[in-house]
Amino acid sequence: MRRLTGSTAAILAALNAEQKFVQEDNRQIEKQVQTIIQQVIQKGDQALKEYSKQFDKVEIADFIVSKQSIEQGYERVEKEVIAALEAAKENIISYHQKQKQYDFMDTEKNGVLRGQLVLPLKSVGVYVPGGTAAYPSSVLMNVIPAKIAGVKEIIMVTPPTLTGIPDVILAAAKIAGVSKVFQVGGAQAIAALAYGTQTIPKVDKIVGPGNIYVATAKKQVFGLVGIDMIAGPSEIGIIADCSANPTYIAADLLSQAEHDILARAILVTNSSALAEQVEKEIERQLRTLPRKAIAEQAIKNYGCMIITETFDGMFTVMNDIAPEHLEIQLTDPINYLNKIENAGSIFLGEYASEPVGDYLSGTNHVLPTSGTAKFYSPLGVYDFVKYSQVTHYTKEALANAKEAITLLARKEGLEAHARAVECRFE
Amino acid sequence: MRRLTGSTAAILAALNAEQKFVQEDNRQIEKQVQTIIQQVIQKGDQALKEYSKQFDKVEIADFIVSKQSIEQGYERVEKEVIAALEAAKENIISYHQKQKQYDFMDTEKNGVLRGQLVLPLKSVGVYVPGGTAAYPSSVLMNVIPAKIAGVKEIIMVTPPTLTGIPDVILAAAKIAGVSKVFQVGGAQAIAALAYGTQTIPKVDKIVGPGNIYVATAKKQVFGLVGIDMIAGPSEIGIIADCSANPTYIAADLLSQAEHDILARAILVTNSSALAEQVEKEIERQLRTLPRKAIAEQAIKNYGCMIITETFDGMFTVMNDIAPEHLEIQLTDPINYLNKIENAGSIFLGEYASEPVGDYLSGTNHVLPTSGTAKFYSPLGVYDFVKYSQVTHYTKEALANAKEAITLLARKEGLEAHARAVECRFE
Repeated sequence: MRRLTGSTAAILAALNAEQKFVQEDNRQIEKQVQTIIQQVIQKGDQALKEYSKQFDKVEIADFIVSKQSIEQGYERVEKEVIAALEAAKENIISYHQKQKQYDFMDTEKNGVLRGQLVLPLKSVGVYVPGGTAAYPSSVLMNVIPAKIAGVKEIIMVTPPTLTGIPDVILAAAKIAGVSKVFQVGGAQAIAALAYGTQTIPKVDKIVGPGNIYVATAKKQVFGLVGIDMIAGPSEIGIIADCSANPTYIAADLLSQAEHDILARAILVTNSSALAEQVEKEIERQLRTLPRKAIAEQAIKNYGCMIITETFDGMFTVMNDIAPEHLEIQLTDPINYLNKIENAGSIFLGEYASEPVGDYLSGTNHVLPTSGTAKFYSPLGVYDFVKYSQVTHYTKEALANAKEAITLLARKEGLEAHARAVECRFE
Repeated sequence: MRRLTGSTAAILAALNAEQKFVQEDNRQIEKQVQTIIQQVIQKGDQALKEYSKQFDKVEIADFIVSKQSIEQGYERVEKEVIAALEAAKENIISYHQKQKQYDFMDTEKNGVLRGQLVLPLKSVGVYVPGGTAAYPSSVLMNVIPAKIAGVKEIIMVTPPTLTGIPDVILAAAKIAGVSKVFQVGGAQAIAALAYGTQTIPKVDKIVGPGNIYVATAKKQVFGLVGIDMIAGPSEIGIIADCSANPTYIAADLLSQAEHDILARAILVTNSSALAEQVEKEIERQLRTLPRKAIAEQAIKNYGCMIITETFDGMFTVMNDIAPEHLEIQLTDPINYLNKIENAGSIFLGEYASEPVGDYLSGTNHVLPTSGTAKFYSPLGVYDFVKYSQVTHYTKEALANAKEAITLLARKEGLEAHARAVECRFE
């Protein structure tokens, strides 16, 4: 595993040199996606059928997945799994309900009323990726916050397969409360949600992860509809000192690394002894992991042990990394919460192992990746509402405001703005 | 002025046929902007100098605008204008302070602690367009919410001119509390803020309106940094019945139309008599407007009177339009607030003329345009913070959660996730 040592300044310089972002040349994919979107605009469902045949090798008669199919999928899933998903759902609800925001409306002595309404989006599309692995937990994480926000119509799309949508995904859709499920994937599914077709309704916002075609399509329809953040490879950062348990740290780093060969697992510590122990533990635990090949490659290419000279240096370095998941494995971890500037989801202490957040704690697992925690938030109820400002003036209040408004309007050369106020007093 | 009449369904169908979005072919501009961004990444300040010479016809020795220049600009502005800007600032602060959000942190009986931190972005770039008109009000609207959110570094960029930055813009920068002003504009300014150069610091998020090059550059750096919404032409929608004053309505429609030949001014009414009167008033008021040519063209091409058959139809139609600015010119307008689903900023009653919001009320005038109020919000304090989730588990809490977590992890094929929890109990 790679190591970085030295002064905090030297470590930051080394990290930033790597981060020197190279604009990827996706022009080929961008063009392909543009064509797909145009075809969906022009030919609607017919285009979706053609692309499903071409990309997914499936001939689709009807895109909608019937209520009956969803029920049948649900029934086929083991009862214990259903119970665990229900438990997760309960915790997701209780956490996200705390994020609910409320209108305000204040009148002031001078006759001015100002307020803010919090209004739900009307309809949302949730993309659920296909491929080898099925992630029912992600269905819950994307859908439940929208439900709590008050979104009435939640449309799920997921790529068709010859064997149908996985049962556990259908079960999660039912448990989460999806309104409708359509079997369509890729850039064509995003185009359908953005523009609407004969069978697939146009939505206000599209969320959910996907491959490069899905991500490119989301970027292209951005502005016509809302989209969530663009997700990159998953990552974990762990801050630990000599008091930490190397077995736990190694296990948590590996739980990240097994996701993806691009996943980043980073330990930041002021103890080189701990770093040694963790490295050995990783080797030991790797041996028996089913996804050893993936985890090993991720650890080798993107794993990193950063050893700082000072205790505070651990926080400076980690804030610069701005990890998606952050564990603080220090004695009395709550003491250090005030030092965290950038992190998607923070796990405190040795029993808040990161998988707790993936599956059960109810905090969201859709999180900002690749350093975007500097400006993005976890997916939350706030992603499914929008605000409207409200203003009311009495005649007296407008009379008091008239001079300043007309002066500024004329200074900006906008005479009709000034007259709109003045005509009220003629 | 164009008219739409008929049943609500017929009006909605007509509106939606128009909205049939045609993907603009900006490929030429996209390519140019890609090149500009690449040059700024590779050559930094030198690229900025070359582009300033090429596009702005100005040779720049030093991009930073000195504190002294800002002070001097401020001193040259009329005292009454400064006073009006200060009054606006005070109202912007008092409104936006109501948007502040706070951390929460709840412990539960079962030993689980979950919370959410609200953390300010560290640095923000504000783009202020050049061109013929200077809009100091927009400087206040973009900068003050960031200050209230707690952003430490607010970098303003604005195109250089042979005669320097307009005094009133410098004054607004000082009043709003901008940290640093750089004279650089266009796509190159956006690239500089996204990647950083020798003199211009990399920021976490870029806000502020600009021309098509600026908008395209923002879209291209989106994901590497945060950006605000992509602004389209300005628009106003007015809901009014026969009780409304046609003079006021005409004046407010014209205040929107004078912005831009693409501005949209829309009246939705259930009274064709009112529509007639408003049309005559528009003609009358247009005659003496300094920006008559612009307003007339906007009214002709994008203005619209929509006459509904029912009272409720007015709201159905307006919610579909989702206007940036919405005036409700009805008796007792607060009665109808619950019918509004989509609108950036709502103005109630005959004295809340829309220019009040542009200049003085303190609500933000950076608003979602072109129907994006269905999913976007006005610019606000929430645009300059991000959230971090917090989780703490006691050993007992993790023991209780173990079964559900390991079951779901294994169902998703992620063994290392299950083991990360189990190793805590070995």
